[in-house]
Amino acid sequence: MVKDISTLMGYRKDIRVVDATLRDGGLVNDFYFTDDFVRALYQTNVKAGVDYMEFGYKASKEMFDVDKFGKWKFCNDDDIREIVGDNNTDLKISVMADVGRCDYKTDIIDKKDSPIDLIRVATYLNTIPTAVDMIEDASNKGYSTSCNIMAISNGQEEDIKVALDILGQTPVDIFYIVDSYGALYPEQIARIADLYLNFAAKFGKKVGIHAHNNQQLAFANTIEAVGDGVDWLDGTYLAMGRGAGNCAMELLLGFLRNPKYNVYPAIKFVEQYMSKLKDEGIVWGYDLQYLMTGLLNQHPRTAIQFTKDGRTDYSEFYKEVVAHD
Amino acid sequence: MVKDISTLMGYRKDIRVVDATLRDGGLVNDFYFTDDFVRALYQTNVKAGVDYMEFGYKASKEMFDVDKFGKWKFCNDDDIREIVGDNNTDLKISVMADVGRCDYKTDIIDKKDSPIDLIRVATYLNTIPTAVDMIEDASNKGYSTSCNIMAISNGQEEDIKVALDILGQTPVDIFYIVDSYGALYPEQIARIADLYLNFAAKFGKKVGIHAHNNQQLAFANTIEAVGDGVDWLDGTYLAMGRGAGNCAMELLLGFLRNPKYNVYPAIKFVEQYMSKLKDEGIVWGYDLQYLMTGLLNQHPRTAIQFTKDGRTDYSEFYKEVVAHD
Repeated sequence: MVKDISTLMGYRKDIRVVDATLRDGGLVNDFYFTDDFVRALYQTNVKAGVDYMEFGYKASKEMFDVDKFGKWKFCNDDDIREIVGDNNTDLKISVMADVGRCDYKTDIIDKKDSPIDLIRVATYLNTIPTAVDMIEDASNKGYSTSCNIMAISNGQEEDIKVALDILGQTPVDIFYIVDSYGALYPEQIARIADLYLNFAAKFGKKVGIHAHNNQQLAFANTIEAVGDGVDWLDGTYLAMGRGAGNCAMELLLGFLRNPKYNVYPAIKFVEQYMSKLKDEGIVWGYDLQYLMTGLLNQHPRTAIQFTKDGRTDYSEFYKEVVAHD
Repeated sequence: MVKDISTLMGYRKDIRVVDATLRDGGLVNDFYFTDDFVRALYQTNVKAGVDYMEFGYKASKEMFDVDKFGKWKFCNDDDIREIVGDNNTDLKISVMADVGRCDYKTDIIDKKDSPIDLIRVATYLNTIPTAVDMIEDASNKGYSTSCNIMAISNGQEEDIKVALDILGQTPVDIFYIVDSYGALYPEQIARIADLYLNFAAKFGKKVGIHAHNNQQLAFANTIEAVGDGVDWLDGTYLAMGRGAGNCAMELLLGFLRNPKYNVYPAIKFVEQYMSKLKDEGIVWGYDLQYLMTGLLNQHPRTAIQFTKDGRTDYSEFYKEVVAHD
């Protein structure tokens, strides 16, 4: 039951930290980050030793009005280039591509012409075939790829196994555990990590985790996963992300033992940039409405609406979300 | 490595939930809770199925000016009686008695004349002999007792073993794991729980946990401990407690599977009473200054001062707390 003590003193060189602030945080402010913010974030990630910075989504401009969102919902290669130049750093760049909401055949260009290194394909269990097509498309264009299977806390274990078996036979590099609803406890993460790691070992893949903080477990679930052998870890500064937010980058960098990671630039960035977003009235993070949807293993959309409506009648909301009629 | 799945579906009847809102929360507002608040808290605990309600400290009136604190720093039996009457409920009552800050021989009266059921003796490792004297005194007067060994993240394992061996030979009922600095990770909690449970088994005692939220791990560490076999669990509503606060009662009640526990009254109480305290400007809970002292395994007093001073220069604070000169 007690894990090898070395996991808290030593470190695994294979660990990769992914900053998802612009991408998951963009869901909170419709991706309206200033260029100054994005540049400072980029510099912070470089200084902090973060391995990947996710700039946002490659969202379809057919489906979404470019005038109604900040540019990081679309992540034009030129916009990224504007921030990173030739990106002569150790920091690599990722974007997320949602199944059914991305014109990947046209909008994702050849890697040799793009500043992007990694395409993270986000899918539900019932859209795996399209995810496979997206992975193959991106891989053929020269990118590394991950597959982030969302909402697995509502999925059947047998379906997850079938999905991992299908994905194992693609060029995808990383299977991502995604606790979309913030519903999972560390014990469950341990079991899921075990399942993912078995398939990963069979097919020569890596495993990652993206957690949500509905039950104040995003960091705990992430470090549970580290202890279990999961290598790719998502974090966001000040835990900025949809609803209850994510695993806080500053907690994660404080925890990791590899000397390449530095928590000080993260603290500085939170102080100078993230606190300001909060002061400007952008709302995210743990609150009781998110606890409730997490506890009930529901999509947080009702809790997000509760927040947007400025409601504080938690007990009424509880009655709404437990109602099955 | 993966724990028995039953721990998330079934439940252990031996689990006891202790509400420490007045006691640890009182450290934030100098124990100035209104009678209305305390009555509503009592009723909430009864309805929520909470097992124990801690009313506060039995602090020495020689050492502390009764005019400078609310009454729950002193917990006169009459003041408790004023709230609970004859306490004809399943909820039991505890108070905390600090080694060196409690006139226990005079201020703790015979159990038969008191509404209090449990005396929780709080001690550091270097004051165990006095803790033993307090435990024996309270036990002779008819009370159940626990011993809460504070700041163990700074203690030597050998000293903790000696302490548990000494305490095992007293009438104390519960050994409490106390993460005073919010410095411990779940893996460490697992190891410490293992140590405490071995001594507890030898001497026929129970084990409890009191966590702090410096690294957003108070709830995670508490449920880790549950999975390891720890039965006594401290929580506070809206996690109110010194510095970064504690394990949130609403998270804990949502997690526990015993049908005797109900989360709804907890949600209602947070909505009606706890949110108001926050609105009134009483400050507690996770913030970066607490992350830093937790990470560095330091007493949170510097972080509390940072908070009181209204500072937000986290990066300067970081430089202060890492300085060893």
